Amino acid sequence: MSLTIAAVEKQYREKVILKDISLTFEQGKIYGLLGRNGAGKSTLLNIINNRSFASKGQVVLDGKLVTENEAQLTQLYLMSEDNLFPPQLKIKKLFKLTEGFYGDFDWDLANKMAEDFELDLKQKFRKLSTGYRSITKLIMALAVPCDYVFLDEPVLGLDANHRELFYDYLLDTYETRVRTFIISTHLIEEITNLLEEVIILDRGKVIRTDSVEELLSEGKVITGPREEVLNFIQGKKVIGEENLGKSMTAYVNSPVSKELPENIEVAPLSLQDYFVHLTNRKRGH
Amino acid sequence: MSLTIAAVEKQYREKVILKDISLTFEQGKIYGLLGRNGAGKSTLLNIINNRSFASKGQVVLDGKLVTENEAQLTQLYLMSEDNLFPPQLKIKKLFKLTEGFYGDFDWDLANKMAEDFELDLKQKFRKLSTGYRSITKLIMALAVPCDYVFLDEPVLGLDANHRELFYDYLLDTYETRVRTFIISTHLIEEITNLLEEVIILDRGKVIRTDSVEELLSEGKVITGPREEVLNFIQGKKVIGEENLGKSMTAYVNSPVSKELPENIEVAPLSLQDYFVHLTNRKRGH
Repeated sequence: MSLTIAAVEKQYREKVILKDISLTFEQGKIYGLLGRNGAGKSTLLNIINNRSFASKGQVVLDGKLVTENEAQLTQLYLMSEDNLFPPQLKIKKLFKLTEGFYGDFDWDLANKMAEDFELDLKQKFRKLSTGYRSITKLIMALAVPCDYVFLDEPVLGLDANHRELFYDYLLDTYETRVRTFIISTHLIEEITNLLEEVIILDRGKVIRTDSVEELLSEGKVITGPREEVLNFIQGKKVIGEENLGKSMTAYVNSPVSKELPENIEVAPLSLQDYFVHLTNRKRGH
Repeated sequence: MSLTIAAVEKQYREKVILKDISLTFEQGKIYGLLGRNGAGKSTLLNIINNRSFASKGQVVLDGKLVTENEAQLTQLYLMSEDNLFPPQLKIKKLFKLTEGFYGDFDWDLANKMAEDFELDLKQKFRKLSTGYRSITKLIMALAVPCDYVFLDEPVLGLDANHRELFYDYLLDTYETRVRTFIISTHLIEEITNLLEEVIILDRGKVIRTDSVEELLSEGKVITGPREEVLNFIQGKKVIGEENLGKSMTAYVNSPVSKELPENIEVAPLSLQDYFVHLTNRKRGH
């Protein structure tokens, strides 16, 4: 089973929102879909999950178009800000509705999560705070039987303890029943350890896809006297730089030899900092 | 000028949401109001800003009750998830409406922020993504002339670059025109440097108020062999502990002498970790 996005484009009036997006999601991996506010992440997720139409291109699951096959759609689950259910329902009823639509529901997991997050299943969804709305939707996303689960800003409004608890549940459930997760979040630092692959979207285009391991091994922070740093980074891919007096910090995305000039310091670049510099609109490069 | 919350309580049916909250906000400081999901932060902010009524107690600004004085209310600004304006309006119109209500509006700042955040002022508010809704509301919160500005989850949905940009703007505008900010956020790590004072709310009660400096100087992570750690932490305020085989990590909130037993290691505790352990409901203590 595989999910392929083939040359997807989206235009709205004159505006190009997504340009020529081609991606393949393999089964049994955890992907991070990273992008700035307005990069087109939510639009892409909506198209993959048939909630919005592509202007061009296709989404193919297991050889069939998701736009034309109801059966394919029940293999995909999108947790996002838009709720397709009636918000006046009680949470337990929402879970039952979800079970009905997807044909199965992990009630053991859902009840355990509700207890750990102190979510009262008798409450009405629309009476919940932002944090508890996210929690309710996260429980549904982990309890459905789908092979592809898309999480758009999963921890919106969650406190630090609850975020940690969710990451633990995600890894647990992934180990128990391997499936594909595609997570879009602005809290990159916190989920770096969960991700295997990263897709970076910027202004409607995919600008980088790679394994987290690869990205982390290439990203480096280089600090030292300005002249020496400029000399050292020649020929390297520089994604950002900062100057402070006579010293300079460069963010590069290239291998670096182990033998360093005396005044140059090299430190690893975190995924969040890598992303920030790569997508910074005011960078010199 | 000072703002005092005197013995405020809030009950909803049988449920006690806030218990005996007394606080004073001094002029010209940046406060962090920290609490778990459901701790009562938003309820408290709504009461202070006269959007909800206290069951008991009072909110007094400059000697006058905010519930009875319209003039007092225009000194307070609450940026929160609830919008008191019509969402079909264009952003520029929203700014004008806000200017009309508060009597002044920093258009230079607002226009500069809109440019830096790439917010199109001709867009309608309700067409915006979560991130850009937050950005719109943040601009209004910094542009109004109020002496007390409350920010409830200011960076909800903002990407890492935009969060950094906002923190920079907050400090800039605070230095240019000193006023009081009260910030409630779940992203504690990122704002630690901005805060001067911290108020921790847990299950409707204030469990700690102190300067960030004080909290950071007292919080410690103590690691070592279980028996020796237990011995070392005797008489200290322990807010959390973790066991791993024969070794143990304790989170304490007490001064620690500089002369340490051989096998004991002491590291500083970040504000976020301090908060997480202090409010963790599954802790041993």
